[in-house]
Amino acid sequence: MIAILKHGTTPEQTKHLINWLARMELDVHVSEGAEVTVLGLIGDTSRVDMELLSSLEMVESVKRVSEPFKQANRKFHPNDTVIEVGKVKIGGGNFAMMAGPCSVESEDQIIEVAKAVKAAGANILRGGAFKPRTSPYAFQGMGGQGIDLLLKAKAETGLPIVTEIMDISTLDLFADVDIIQVGARNMQNFNLLKELGKTNKPILLKRGLANTLQELLMSAEYIMSEGNENIMLCERGIRTFETYTRNTLDLSAVSVLHELSHLPVIVDPSHATGKAKLVPPMAVAATAAGTDGLIIEVHNKPACALCDGAQSLTPAQFEELSRKVQRIREAIV
Amino acid sequence: MIAILKHGTTPEQTKHLINWLARMELDVHVSEGAEVTVLGLIGDTSRVDMELLSSLEMVESVKRVSEPFKQANRKFHPNDTVIEVGKVKIGGGNFAMMAGPCSVESEDQIIEVAKAVKAAGANILRGGAFKPRTSPYAFQGMGGQGIDLLLKAKAETGLPIVTEIMDISTLDLFADVDIIQVGARNMQNFNLLKELGKTNKPILLKRGLANTLQELLMSAEYIMSEGNENIMLCERGIRTFETYTRNTLDLSAVSVLHELSHLPVIVDPSHATGKAKLVPPMAVAATAAGTDGLIIEVHNKPACALCDGAQSLTPAQFEELSRKVQRIREAIV
Amino acid sequence: MIAILKHGTTPEQTKHLINWLARMELDVHVSEGAEVTVLGLIGDTSRVDMELLSSLEMVESVKRVSEPFKQANRKFHPNDTVIEVGKVKIGGGNFAMMAGPCSVESEDQIIEVAKAVKAAGANILRGGAFKPRTSPYAFQGMGGQGIDLLLKAKAETGLPIVTEIMDISTLDLFADVDIIQVGARNMQNFNLLKELGKTNKPILLKRGLANTLQELLMSAEYIMSEGNENIMLCERGIRTFETYTRNTLDLSAVSVLHELSHLPVIVDPSHATGKAKLVPPMAVAATAAGTDGLIIEVHNKPACALCDGAQSLTPAQFEELSRKVQRIREAIV
Amino acid sequence: MIAILKHGTTPEQTKHLINWLARMELDVHVSEGAEVTVLGLIGDTSRVDMELLSSLEMVESVKRVSEPFKQANRKFHPNDTVIEVGKVKIGGGNFAMMAGPCSVESEDQIIEVAKAVKAAGANILRGGAFKPRTSPYAFQGMGGQGIDLLLKAKAETGLPIVTEIMDISTLDLFADVDIIQVGARNMQNFNLLKELGKTNKPILLKRGLANTLQELLMSAEYIMSEGNENIMLCERGIRTFETYTRNTLDLSAVSVLHELSHLPVIVDPSHATGKAKLVPPMAVAATAAGTDGLIIEVHNKPACALCDGAQSLTPAQFEELSRKVQRIREAIV
Repeated sequence: MIAILKHGTTPEQTKHLINWLARMELDVHVSEGAEVTVLGLIGDTSRVDMELLSSLEMVESVKRVSEPFKQANRKFHPNDTVIEVGKVKIGGGNFAMMAGPCSVESEDQIIEVAKAVKAAGANILRGGAFKPRTSPYAFQGMGGQGIDLLLKAKAETGLPIVTEIMDISTLDLFADVDIIQVGARNMQNFNLLKELGKTNKPILLKRGLANTLQELLMSAEYIMSEGNENIMLCERGIRTFETYTRNTLDLSAVSVLHELSHLPVIVDPSHATGKAKLVPPMAVAATAAGTDGLIIEVHNKPACALCDGAQSLTPAQFEELSRKVQRIREAIV
Repeated sequence: MIAILKHGTTPEQTKHLINWLARMELDVHVSEGAEVTVLGLIGDTSRVDMELLSSLEMVESVKRVSEPFKQANRKFHPNDTVIEVGKVKIGGGNFAMMAGPCSVESEDQIIEVAKAVKAAGANILRGGAFKPRTSPYAFQGMGGQGIDLLLKAKAETGLPIVTEIMDISTLDLFADVDIIQVGARNMQNFNLLKELGKTNKPILLKRGLANTLQELLMSAEYIMSEGNENIMLCERGIRTFETYTRNTLDLSAVSVLHELSHLPVIVDPSHATGKAKLVPPMAVAATAAGTDGLIIEVHNKPACALCDGAQSLTPAQFEELSRKVQRIREAIV
Repeated sequence: MIAILKHGTTPEQTKHLINWLARMELDVHVSEGAEVTVLGLIGDTSRVDMELLSSLEMVESVKRVSEPFKQANRKFHPNDTVIEVGKVKIGGGNFAMMAGPCSVESEDQIIEVAKAVKAAGANILRGGAFKPRTSPYAFQGMGGQGIDLLLKAKAETGLPIVTEIMDISTLDLFADVDIIQVGARNMQNFNLLKELGKTNKPILLKRGLANTLQELLMSAEYIMSEGNENIMLCERGIRTFETYTRNTLDLSAVSVLHELSHLPVIVDPSHATGKAKLVPPMAVAATAAGTDGLIIEVHNKPACALCDGAQSLTPAQFEELSRKVQRIREAIV
Repeated sequence: MIAILKHGTTPEQTKHLINWLARMELDVHVSEGAEVTVLGLIGDTSRVDMELLSSLEMVESVKRVSEPFKQANRKFHPNDTVIEVGKVKIGGGNFAMMAGPCSVESEDQIIEVAKAVKAAGANILRGGAFKPRTSPYAFQGMGGQGIDLLLKAKAETGLPIVTEIMDISTLDLFADVDIIQVGARNMQNFNLLKELGKTNKPILLKRGLANTLQELLMSAEYIMSEGNENIMLCERGIRTFETYTRNTLDLSAVSVLHELSHLPVIVDPSHATGKAKLVPPMAVAATAAGTDGLIIEVHNKPACALCDGAQSLTPAQFEELSRKVQRIREAIV
């Protein structure tokens, strides 16, 4: 870590600062320049409160030379992490195609969709049991019962399942769930992250709506610091001024996360765009950008002629997309 | 709620949609125009999934005529809510001046700061016991012990205390806390909100970094829907492209929230700007805009010459600010 | 256009409003509902000031049913526009691969790069002559002399050229330029757009840093309304809170613009990301998303070992990228 | 300027870089640390392309120690700039109250509004003659004729006038205009800025919708670098994700600009919020934050009962606001 001191800082102030840093068990290497004085801080700088240090009157700026995340850092783990979920592998060249309905609604529904997406190329089943909703008056999901139905669909099809946890008090209900999803709104629910770190479950960690990629990696670090290294990072759109799409899918995240970290990266084009028409082009674009997997909403409501056009694909649309994704994967090798 | 159907929608599709809406116990009033067909939905539309409805292929757009929040809505509760915390009243013309250190560090520290801010004009003591930190390696606060020290400072000075909860499992520790703060990262931790709704504690609900004012009100609604109406809404800066300040303080939030809701509004200029120099001008600006209170970081570290310039004010700076705020309050009457 | 009036609007107020609209030669179709009154405005609504109408106290909201852009609108021009630049076609299945240096620096440099990018798969040469720079003290480009050098490179290689105009007073210098680029900062320089509309030159119109896709289309409309229909829309990243990349490339723009408009869409991954490493993955992702072309920075400085890693690719990197783009184009057919 | 080189940079690479910097007439002071090598660049660094330097593979990061703006910099001009417009002074404790209609519409209208705002406390008259409009089909203003009418209103009332220029070709029409406004969309129209720098007219420079405060100061620098130092900086709201207000007024800009620059700062609450109700609270908040002036839309349409509630205030509302602003100014002294 480098701290640049302002021109005009007195030797006494500099001494004060060095003493303060020394109390955090850091060695300080002082380099006096013509314009500024640069302090090189050596030791475990991950404990240094960078915002506090930056805000000191005498400090011009502070720069981390090493990233504040360690276990998620590719520098220290050059090889891609490969996560195994049943017979499915994710990362390191293995592709996860997660698909399923927005919400679990009934046994018939989830089993029917599970069969359809399996036939169409999915290797993991998604479905919401606990639903985070902006309004307290909206349907909040089937809860534990929804998880039971997902497990039935798993028994029927053999597909591993991924579903979202909203609160640590419900962790027991996820005992047989294959991948636990942490939603965008919970990306910085640090107590939840720590508890999930104590399990050995694969975690699908979604990027928050207004969180930087470094913050996403720090949240992965929370889980990893407790011992669980099975984490997938998920880009699902960020909040910007553009209103035509629900969020703005940031596909550069795929490359940046692969550069900075060894963890697999998954892209969710359904929630990012909010429009079924945009899901296939963004899914193939994500594939071309090198994502390790996709998570796609697919519904199966032949009786509901209305629902085409919503953010979910039909099984037929999903099958066509699967084939296209496969062709792209071959083209970028 | 109004749904505008696209030109070219067939009568059969329209009928499908009306039947679907009827199953949600809504009456539908159809109005056929030259260019479009407009459906007026009458009944309890708070359950309607507006995103789903909007995303239907046949739907041009959907517009709520009534806001989706009810209990927080000024339309149904025209008078300002006044929250009582010990002898302090907040809202309806009563001003809360909350001040104290970022983190509780020791008994001496918190009692000394408490006395200083009381003398300088504060009527509520703030201090962090549980600290949400981006890095798992950073100091996470003193936890329950920090709350004990805040209670000692309260006993010594008579100031009610406000401190942040991060996880519902620690709720018991907040039994004697006067105001429970929900931090920006937890604004949409819906399970936490619901549990707090079952208490009768005053809640200081901070706006999330990328949340709209309507979403803030919906989160207040989560608490209120469980029975707790003692909520203060807190503007603390939103995330934008500007990097000079830590966040961008959105002061129009004060007027907008007062227009839409009867709940008191508090402004936090310390976290919004991240720079001590900017705290006084933004605090007086917030006062001029009509805020019902401020929450300000004040430290008391005579030994630490370094710390001036950080985001916290000294007691002397805070005292000067208090007097200025008082003059502004008199000027805007 | 639909205007929804607030509950409680008096018949007299409604009459006032209808008269005001009638003065703009609009027919008004009134539909009284249980909760609201809906006005359908029929006629040429493109002149209606939507912001003014929305801001009237009695108006709940205003919704355009038809988009405000006409000539750029796919509804009225279902077929893709194909732009011809010399022997190169762009749009409707024809791909533009524009490449070249950030700035024209010398005759040797531009001719050398032109030959290199042609050999590597480019069919159009880019190069900056007039450079918009944040600082008045930075190099502002070679100006007219830079254009002369580009024309020499064109003569040498046969590649059509694209270069940026900053001010209408320099238009004469662009007489032999094949494609005139309007930069992001000038996207809403309406007088410039109108003047370009009076030429018949192909225009590469870049999206502004904080402009919506609809605003981009309205700026295209400014050019088209003066008679010039040869416009390419260019996505080059928008400004968000993320700081790891220079801007956030919004690839959903490709599909959305294709849906709304018949104009070709070009993607600029070099300026969007600001990092050479990210250019190839974003270029192939853009191709998979269906872009009609790419514009890529390529330098050629064997003497400057420093420059690798900057936002420009080497000719060798560009050649590899060209081949990958070709494979992706075949995969998505 | 400080450049921090990555760990692992070879001595040869470092030498390459130093030679390259030397060619820009910079002295380089090398400081080798345990983790990194720091280069201190001494000389006129305003010509260094910081983005290019940062993007080099071997460079960890680059930090300007001195701001890139010089003439606008308070460090070199500690005293507040005071701009004189007729008998009105702006800055250094002198307050500008600019008011008037959005657009000039007729002689009667502008003279009537001018008299009304003068009586109500305005000391400068605003009014749009050239109107930047998103749509080419919307009313584009009265142009030169509008300026003539503003001059008549000036003759009648003695109020100096401020109006927007959109294109340098119309500069002659502004010969008798007192203050030339550069709109948000033109903040980085560098050629326009340079031309205005060659005049000695006071300039009201509005911040772009997505521009940082440093970029605003760099645009002021463009004008100043050509000799014109009479610049007012205007905060008018930035584009964020919040949709309730048209833009988000960033009031911290007032303090930050005062800290960094000696130029006067003006706030425009009318365009920032887009709602008349929000104009008075934001105007008084801006005053409390220390703004040197306000620019407010005021209409005068007794015949148009519809128009109350739009973004313009009535003269009566403006008069009340003027008195409140005066009280706030006295309270913050």
